[in-house]
Amino acid sequence: MANFDLMRRLTHDTGGKILLLVMDGVGGLPREQGGLTELETAHTPNMDRLAKEGSTGLSIPVARGIAPGSGPAHLALFGYDPLYYDIGRGVLEGMGIGALIGPGDVAIRGNFATVDANGLITDRRAGRISTEEGAKRVELLKDIPLPGVKADVYPVQDYRFALVLHGDGLDGEVEDTDPQITGVAPLPAKATRPQAEKTAQLANQWIAEAAKRLKGHEPANMVTLRGFSMDPSLPKYSDVYKLKAACVAVYPMYRGVSQLVGMDIVETDMHDSAGDEFKRVAQVWNKYDFVFCHIKYTDSRGEDGDFDGKVKVIEEVDAALPILLDMKPDVFIITGDHSTPATYKAHSWHPVPTLLWAPKTHMTDRAQAYGERECMGGALGQFPATDLMPLALAHANRLAKYGA
Amino acid sequence: MANFDLMRRLTHDTGGKILLLVMDGVGGLPREQGGLTELETAHTPNMDRLAKEGSTGLSIPVARGIAPGSGPAHLALFGYDPLYYDIGRGVLEGMGIGALIGPGDVAIRGNFATVDANGLITDRRAGRISTEEGAKRVELLKDIPLPGVKADVYPVQDYRFALVLHGDGLDGEVEDTDPQITGVAPLPAKATRPQAEKTAQLANQWIAEAAKRLKGHEPANMVTLRGFSMDPSLPKYSDVYKLKAACVAVYPMYRGVSQLVGMDIVETDMHDSAGDEFKRVAQVWNKYDFVFCHIKYTDSRGEDGDFDGKVKVIEEVDAALPILLDMKPDVFIITGDHSTPATYKAHSWHPVPTLLWAPKTHMTDRAQAYGERECMGGALGQFPATDLMPLALAHANRLAKYGA
Repeated sequence: MANFDLMRRLTHDTGGKILLLVMDGVGGLPREQGGLTELETAHTPNMDRLAKEGSTGLSIPVARGIAPGSGPAHLALFGYDPLYYDIGRGVLEGMGIGALIGPGDVAIRGNFATVDANGLITDRRAGRISTEEGAKRVELLKDIPLPGVKADVYPVQDYRFALVLHGDGLDGEVEDTDPQITGVAPLPAKATRPQAEKTAQLANQWIAEAAKRLKGHEPANMVTLRGFSMDPSLPKYSDVYKLKAACVAVYPMYRGVSQLVGMDIVETDMHDSAGDEFKRVAQVWNKYDFVFCHIKYTDSRGEDGDFDGKVKVIEEVDAALPILLDMKPDVFIITGDHSTPATYKAHSWHPVPTLLWAPKTHMTDRAQAYGERECMGGALGQFPATDLMPLALAHANRLAKYGA
Repeated sequence: MANFDLMRRLTHDTGGKILLLVMDGVGGLPREQGGLTELETAHTPNMDRLAKEGSTGLSIPVARGIAPGSGPAHLALFGYDPLYYDIGRGVLEGMGIGALIGPGDVAIRGNFATVDANGLITDRRAGRISTEEGAKRVELLKDIPLPGVKADVYPVQDYRFALVLHGDGLDGEVEDTDPQITGVAPLPAKATRPQAEKTAQLANQWIAEAAKRLKGHEPANMVTLRGFSMDPSLPKYSDVYKLKAACVAVYPMYRGVSQLVGMDIVETDMHDSAGDEFKRVAQVWNKYDFVFCHIKYTDSRGEDGDFDGKVKVIEEVDAALPILLDMKPDVFIITGDHSTPATYKAHSWHPVPTLLWAPKTHMTDRAQAYGERECMGGALGQFPATDLMPLALAHANRLAKYGA
């Protein structure tokens, strides 16, 4: 991508430090005509102060009108055009739990499921068994032998696991075996191009053996596989931006995409609060030029349609913000990967309120608070999310002049 | 275009209904320093209410600084990059009057003209003869025989007609025969590439025979041809957007471009008022997912330099708006294809005030009325006109999420 060529050419390590705080799905909509959004409703004195001092704007994740999934949305925030870089879910999930996925390997998401005596699915999520129960089943599936290929299996969360095939001649173009409905048998793995025939056959062989081993282990007595995919070999942060970068995130997917762009993954706990995550950022801050910190629950509450719950998450983040401010980042960006209005109960296409605070270089605009309408007409305008990294680097004084 | 690939992939028919009202050339400029534009001057309580509740912005028809013709401007509104899709005027005009133009055919715009005894043009528009007089002359030109090719001729309006050549081996790369000035003879049709030689010869043969037949039929005793062009085979609305779409427009050109993108053409009358057009929209509303309604006279008054006349047209549109509002569209967009400031008496490049009202999904911004300055800094920002359709589809809940 031309943009990365430019970044490679202009970036230099001047020591400026960048902190990127992403509240997943932070953008919202008012509950009623004339009302306030979640972010506008929330009491956020710290963010409001930063918005007042710094630059604001609205970021467009993928393109106008496009509601993105979390993978593409984060790629865009990291500066990678998500219409160009297409990453499979298997790879994201696998990398997120620390699975080793090398070039040529195929990574797959797995679900434990329940089938009846006739092999028909009665529960696609095996009664949502706990992570502990899931891990026990994963133990049963380790070391399933496949000809010429090593099949590593990892517990993920609840009823989910990851399967990584290591070997030669593998290909990720294989269809999901999850039929997405109950009352039918799982689908066989099917190649969508000749190069993937071998992988599909191996997957079917693995599934057959897994089914044998899981017999009697209800409710998780079957598996389905989906998201077959391979390492997309993304350019790395150290290469394109000359940044030593780290990720603090509690959900596997976000760690996965961060790892793909070359960030180090900081250990977290599933139950970390915003404050806990911020403390983890503070602990590693001295070692990195760039830290990405991800807050999941703004999106979760939006998806639930829980307007007040989303407001509360935002307020918790704001209350914990002094932990980050104490680190005195040169550039501090607060944004979302996309909007998840509680009224919409889903990811949406609405541009995302964005705040860039860089006391030595930011342009103060007229925004008086961090919110959707305050960010309209801010100093950053409406901009594609892929422009955020160049803006961050520039404000950190890490980009040389273009041309003489 | 990649964008259409994305649309094809993400669109689904969820039943959301979209109404696009285009006031041709609606954008304007103040008459004097510190004054109001035509749209700001007009009393438009209905549009102002929609602007207050919904999203506003400014649309850029082709590119910053580019004043577009009506064809490219409408293509852009319909989501087709006008720098990529280049459509000849002959095709637009021909399709607008219902001429059948198939793949391989060449469509041409014709003018009746007046020539003197020496064959020199004295009036390029034949004294602007009436549509009725034009139609009589067209009768004389029917069935002019050409070797291996059928030449259909259609009356258009006033002194204008359309000529469509059906046959094999035709090519549209032929120059206009209208010299654009008087006192000279019409130019011969001239091919600009070898493949078009045959078409140019046939055109010259047709012109020679037409001149013979028109002798004595002053003031329309000659013809000129221009806009030689072929069916550009545009992707269709049903294909790229999964929309069943209709067009309500009184002028041929707008029906022509609508037909090219696969809209059904609703019958109208040249003398329809805005209210008449809106009633036609209401009559077909149940049968379509998307209706495009075109108001011509905002542009006409702008071109005339008639500021007050343009204000009056806008006010008539606003007064008739309840007819459209009663249909309760899920998404209602009011915009223009370009600006035509009365002070400029021509199409201009100024971004076009745009209003998107979709009560279930729109983001309210701070605009208090529908006007150029109120739309600056609205929720839609400044956006390329080609982004309007993705926005419309998203707000109608017709676009699936991109990626997981």
